[in-house]
Amino acid sequence: MSDGASPLESVFTYAAPALKFGRGAATEVGYDVRGWGARRALVVTDPDVAAAGHAETVADSLRAHGIEVVVYDRARVEPTDASLIDAVDFARAESGRAGIDAVVAVGGGSSIDTGKAVALLLTNPGDLMDYINAPVGKARAPERPVLPLAAVPTTTGTGSESTTICVLDVLSLKVKTGISHPALRPRLAVVDPSLSATQPAGVIAAAGMDIACHALESYTARWFADQPAKTAEQRVPYCGSNPISDVWSERALGLLAGAFRAAVRREPGDPAAPADPAAADAMALAATFAGLGFGNAGVHVPHANAYPIAGRVRDFRPADYPGQEPMVPHGMAVGLTAPEAFRFTFDAAPQRHLRAARLLAGATDASAAADGPDLLPTVLVDLMRDIGLPNGLAAVGYGAGDVDDLVAGALQQQRLLATAPKDVTAEDLAGVVGASLELW
Amino acid sequence: MSDGASPLESVFTYAAPALKFGRGAATEVGYDVRGWGARRALVVTDPDVAAAGHAETVADSLRAHGIEVVVYDRARVEPTDASLIDAVDFARAESGRAGIDAVVAVGGGSSIDTGKAVALLLTNPGDLMDYINAPVGKARAPERPVLPLAAVPTTTGTGSESTTICVLDVLSLKVKTGISHPALRPRLAVVDPSLSATQPAGVIAAAGMDIACHALESYTARWFADQPAKTAEQRVPYCGSNPISDVWSERALGLLAGAFRAAVRREPGDPAAPADPAAADAMALAATFAGLGFGNAGVHVPHANAYPIAGRVRDFRPADYPGQEPMVPHGMAVGLTAPEAFRFTFDAAPQRHLRAARLLAGATDASAAADGPDLLPTVLVDLMRDIGLPNGLAAVGYGAGDVDDLVAGALQQQRLLATAPKDVTAEDLAGVVGASLELW
Repeated sequence: MSDGASPLESVFTYAAPALKFGRGAATEVGYDVRGWGARRALVVTDPDVAAAGHAETVADSLRAHGIEVVVYDRARVEPTDASLIDAVDFARAESGRAGIDAVVAVGGGSSIDTGKAVALLLTNPGDLMDYINAPVGKARAPERPVLPLAAVPTTTGTGSESTTICVLDVLSLKVKTGISHPALRPRLAVVDPSLSATQPAGVIAAAGMDIACHALESYTARWFADQPAKTAEQRVPYCGSNPISDVWSERALGLLAGAFRAAVRREPGDPAAPADPAAADAMALAATFAGLGFGNAGVHVPHANAYPIAGRVRDFRPADYPGQEPMVPHGMAVGLTAPEAFRFTFDAAPQRHLRAARLLAGATDASAAADGPDLLPTVLVDLMRDIGLPNGLAAVGYGAGDVDDLVAGALQQQRLLATAPKDVTAEDLAGVVGASLELW
Repeated sequence: MSDGASPLESVFTYAAPALKFGRGAATEVGYDVRGWGARRALVVTDPDVAAAGHAETVADSLRAHGIEVVVYDRARVEPTDASLIDAVDFARAESGRAGIDAVVAVGGGSSIDTGKAVALLLTNPGDLMDYINAPVGKARAPERPVLPLAAVPTTTGTGSESTTICVLDVLSLKVKTGISHPALRPRLAVVDPSLSATQPAGVIAAAGMDIACHALESYTARWFADQPAKTAEQRVPYCGSNPISDVWSERALGLLAGAFRAAVRREPGDPAAPADPAAADAMALAATFAGLGFGNAGVHVPHANAYPIAGRVRDFRPADYPGQEPMVPHGMAVGLTAPEAFRFTFDAAPQRHLRAARLLAGATDASAAADGPDLLPTVLVDLMRDIGLPNGLAAVGYGAGDVDDLVAGALQQQRLLATAPKDVTAEDLAGVVGASLELW
């Protein structure tokens, strides 16, 4: 925050991958990767995405353009240091054998983040921990160009295809952290809504809350010019809300207003059949737009809270997610404290909170609520109830006795909290988390 | 146009340079270019921009980051084959002497386009004519990576910093043509409104019409999905209006509504003093946004007409432009047939024309005009009169006897006319051009 004496910032930056969007786009990846001069590409994916055939669609496109393909299909949902090291070891062995000159990640944010780590470590020396953000790792900057990465998302949420960060759990420290560097941004995002059309309703609901929070947090992030001036060397990819991220955030909220509830609805009697297939395309576009926004503005309190909410899960198992391990899906973890977080940040930027609420409400009943700190929380709770999200932190297994622990975890995310539109104390977070135990 | 039997397009693409925007941004170029690993950079600029000190500001930043600088300051306003060959010969000689690994263009669209040709031909074999669009040139595709290009615009209009095209006159053939390839898109655009703050009113007016037409033509371009399906190989950077270019076009029009007239106004008694300096920043942002839009959607009838209108000038000399040669500035040439062009295209996309008109009108008197084919022409003529543009083609020296000749020139721009929302015949163009002799 500015001390009033320092000069204020006058510059913002914007970067994004090239984008190819539309049904069928995934069958064209080979053309683009071939245009980079690639001859042997590593496809990074996870077992479920591979089983759905999406990785093979992409591999076929690569082969059709004369590119030899190696597939790594063990990307872990919620990557860990161990899972990333496994991927890097595999990639380095293959690279040593016959060379790899491009990485193509096919999957959710986890596969794309795994692809980022691989692309980084295939051309740069050292090991994973050298590049992980301090204080957990050494925050080393890549000294050589990172391999070009094409990201093909198969879920509509994370926005990882647009961002410069790779998120992981360091198992020995029980901490969620990341690698963050502009060189990690994918060169190309291929968003093919036909790949995400078969997501179950529970996944759409959680991932969609991630989209909504990307847009809402970017839009309410501290304005770039309300921060102290930086030198070129001090700039980070996340520069706060700015005239360009605002455009994407507003558009994403408008798309969500029209499509989110419809995307979750199933045909009567057939829980596998989306009632409104066109809504899936709009959600894919919303995810892309929100990613383009938060990939440059940043996110704040709800995302900071999400780290410990996901990380300290006990035995909650969400509907519609594969696997037997307890988990709070990322988008659900982000969404559960969002209403209270935005009630807390309201006074720092009232007009932005109100406009965001109006955009997200669309023509729903919640749009009739009165202007004020309660409007955005009302709109969010109304949405969360409609799409079937749990009614607060208690519904995923946390109690009043966990608040201090969750707050301690959120406070470790200072990089995110600094993006909030106002200073955030432990007491502030305790208020937000405590009020999020039960939302309606 | 679709024949109704072919499948329709389902994919659109989007690409853009990384962007650094704000007052002071030009002093940071060296940091970014150094990040590309560059050691010796060629600065391409024109004599007037060099005299204003802008090229030196950028060169200083490069040197401060340890980059050796060579300056080429003979870029021609409205580049020709001869002027581009002069720049390429200079650059190749310098590259042969001590290597050049980045190009930084500082100036208007002409300097940036010159930088594109240089960046292309420093790493690729052959000569300029090999790469010029067919049928004038051989339309050869670059076989090696083009040198990275940073573009630092000093005018608010062309959008060349966002696009994949280099426009030039081939003198021996008296034809305006270009080099068009995705590899020509700058890697970085540095938009520093302080560099364009001193433009005279006449330049702001003409360049601002270029911004307006970039946005209006992109917004009314044939919708990407109303075209026949393409293969990856058939795609071109300009894919028609689409969900992303629409965002930029709408925002650019909104910014112009609030800032264009104000940016042209001078302090009473001091024609060099802008009455509203903040309006210059908004115009720079509008130019950037419109460039991000049309750099992916494309432009159509007004830009096609502008080629012969500028190319066949007799003795018109615009106020506020340097030099003694007759010229119709590009933005003026584009704007003069825009009202009639949009009256002609109205019926192909009525809602888009009406929405664009409402956005551009803002709260002006013209916003009260009735919905229909006349609305956008009314809004445009109202704007053009206010900012001091000539009252039609007759005011820049053309008469009824020139219409056929101008139409013949516009018909050569089939690449642009194909982007129009409806088919365009010679008769259609004759109607547009003939009605544009006198606008009010």
